[in-house]
Amino acid sequence: MPVHYTPPKPADLMPVPGVRLGTAAAKIKNWARDDVLLVAFDEGTVAAGVFTQNRFSAAPVVVCRRHLASGPGASIRALVVNAGNANAGTGESGIADANATCEAVASILACKPAEVLPFSTGVIMEPLPVAKIVVALPAAKAALAPDHWFRAVSSIMTTDTVPKGASRRVTVDGVTVTVTGIAKGAGMIHPDMATMLSFVATDAPIGAALLQALTREIADASFNCATVDGDTSTNDSFVIVATGKAAMAPVTRYDDARVGTLRGALAEVATELAQAIVRDGEGATKFITIAVEGGRDAAECRKIALGIAHSPLVKTAFFASDPNLGRIVCAIGNSAAPDLDPSRVSFRLDDVRVVDRGGRAPSYREEEGQRVMKQDEITVTVALGRGQATSRVWTCDFSHDYVSINADYRS
Amino acid sequence: MPVHYTPPKPADLMPVPGVRLGTAAAKIKNWARDDVLLVAFDEGTVAAGVFTQNRFSAAPVVVCRRHLASGPGASIRALVVNAGNANAGTGESGIADANATCEAVASILACKPAEVLPFSTGVIMEPLPVAKIVVALPAAKAALAPDHWFRAVSSIMTTDTVPKGASRRVTVDGVTVTVTGIAKGAGMIHPDMATMLSFVATDAPIGAALLQALTREIADASFNCATVDGDTSTNDSFVIVATGKAAMAPVTRYDDARVGTLRGALAEVATELAQAIVRDGEGATKFITIAVEGGRDAAECRKIALGIAHSPLVKTAFFASDPNLGRIVCAIGNSAAPDLDPSRVSFRLDDVRVVDRGGRAPSYREEEGQRVMKQDEITVTVALGRGQATSRVWTCDFSHDYVSINADYRS
Repeated sequence: MPVHYTPPKPADLMPVPGVRLGTAAAKIKNWARDDVLLVAFDEGTVAAGVFTQNRFSAAPVVVCRRHLASGPGASIRALVVNAGNANAGTGESGIADANATCEAVASILACKPAEVLPFSTGVIMEPLPVAKIVVALPAAKAALAPDHWFRAVSSIMTTDTVPKGASRRVTVDGVTVTVTGIAKGAGMIHPDMATMLSFVATDAPIGAALLQALTREIADASFNCATVDGDTSTNDSFVIVATGKAAMAPVTRYDDARVGTLRGALAEVATELAQAIVRDGEGATKFITIAVEGGRDAAECRKIALGIAHSPLVKTAFFASDPNLGRIVCAIGNSAAPDLDPSRVSFRLDDVRVVDRGGRAPSYREEEGQRVMKQDEITVTVALGRGQATSRVWTCDFSHDYVSINADYRS
Repeated sequence: MPVHYTPPKPADLMPVPGVRLGTAAAKIKNWARDDVLLVAFDEGTVAAGVFTQNRFSAAPVVVCRRHLASGPGASIRALVVNAGNANAGTGESGIADANATCEAVASILACKPAEVLPFSTGVIMEPLPVAKIVVALPAAKAALAPDHWFRAVSSIMTTDTVPKGASRRVTVDGVTVTVTGIAKGAGMIHPDMATMLSFVATDAPIGAALLQALTREIADASFNCATVDGDTSTNDSFVIVATGKAAMAPVTRYDDARVGTLRGALAEVATELAQAIVRDGEGATKFITIAVEGGRDAAECRKIALGIAHSPLVKTAFFASDPNLGRIVCAIGNSAAPDLDPSRVSFRLDDVRVVDRGGRAPSYREEEGQRVMKQDEITVTVALGRGQATSRVWTCDFSHDYVSINADYRS
């Protein structure tokens, strides 16, 4: 069960004008549920995306990048997603399979293959069963409806224990704009541009270039701050689509006064989804925020925050509620720049000062450390004492269930 | 129990002329066994060491560096080691504690404090109980004897399940030379110069400068190829001492014809100890060698080898004997240089070709992958296809016991 995360009810995920969703069962694995998702957009929809930096980018990621780069405005008519097979580590035949899926979607929706973005999630290095997906597409098309966001996210889960989605409605110049997003992911989570799979749609008429800038900015502040196990997936994809159905003049410039409200709604949805992925991290029993401040630059702060977040020794100590906080000292020392002066470093656990000037804080009492470690939400704040930069990441603990889940995943 | 490692019997660890070892119980933790080790060297002994790159170097590491740099020849008369407390993350008072320990040893052995090297291993960020150690030193001195290597290594264990030691005897120009070494360490193992604690002694008369060069070279080829959990300890120390007792002319130049044999014996002992640490890795059920070849340089090969060795998803797949080998593809993609061409990458599991030209090898059969994954010793060989450089690391799998051991360590 996720840490302090209540999954949305179907009615919580508000329809976005211009977006229809349909699912079907392609039986890619031996699952009783739907595993293929088709999302159709009205004409005039633009999309922007950020994708994994893994050098073995999955075939659908390669195809998405091509399609988003292919035309002015990145006009997009559909997304097609399958769960159960990642189509990654599949070489040239994987690319051909992703292209074949786009062609099948284009044929039933009467659009161009380049207007379709493909996504896959599941086991790496197995051939994609394209025929099964293509055969299921007419049923997914027949099911298309604006209020199927909950069914949509349920169909793309793998080791997720709950579906993850969020909606916001904001008013811009008197016009109501909706933002709804979904995400999946629980393991192999250390997004290096975006996480496993997340789609956010809005009916705001945001121009393609501005949308790309906002997508990058929002990914950096949300999904790129989440890590479960430090493994950046081959399939990470985060896409925002804007259907332009809201009755307002197009928003195309970054300095448009309406950008602030729109960015706020998009960022809130993305942050809620990114945190939901960590809260539902494989085997997670705790949600940990690591904040590093006082650094020379944000990159140094982020490196240390991730160093702490990825240490198996720190993660198992959180699991055990054991204030074995020297492990955090060790992780800081491993990820810091060579010229970091340990005697200027301090850190605290929530409100409890643990390390001061590189050594145990005189005021520190083990009972206080123990009290905070027993909580299921904890913030570690590290102060480097040599600048003004900050960074922050979210992570979870490392439990027996993580090992069980990953030792049994394929069976 | 360690993977394919038979710990030495006491008689296997051969005395080294000029070296005496004694242990005592300081009761640093609530242990029934000895936890303090004193090693005394005859006059004329030189030492060289390599130490952790963790920015929170433990106080004894800071003091060791000073003492080894303090005099011409780095003349050393004693080592003093305690288990149960790492004296790391302890700030200025930790340095004072390490110095006080050296002064106490100097006083009972009638040498200078700068001729004593201190070492600590155990919990981080607790004050070192110096008084307990000082009180135990006379008993350790009284116990000094040349044949106490096995007792010595037993006294410095923490989460180790077995004592680790190795001996070699070689003949150089008709003179018999002995090399005996011990090591401890099972978790927080990803040496970035040396591992937790290892001491190797020889009676060969090796000059101080040459000894330092050999120590660095041997550390790189042995301990620096070992990783259990990717956490570089604050206390990593690897020291070689040469007592000079063997009846031969001093060996001071790298091109001396005798260096090859001596280096071979030292390297064999160090490699056996480094592998023993991985075989006894916390919770380990398998011993995995990751070899990366065909790289542009050794650094790129090493980064990828460590990327695979540190992936929790890869390590749990090994634990489960699950040929979920896409996780290795993912780990390669995460640790490779941005310009790596995936379509030139291949890898095999022992003799089974798994990936060819970036995709699943046509000849690959899951039963073959399954057969190798079930073994308790496995070699993963990755070929990058763009150069001649190679690198190799040793690691272990990631099991339920790893979580149990690290969730319970301090209790």
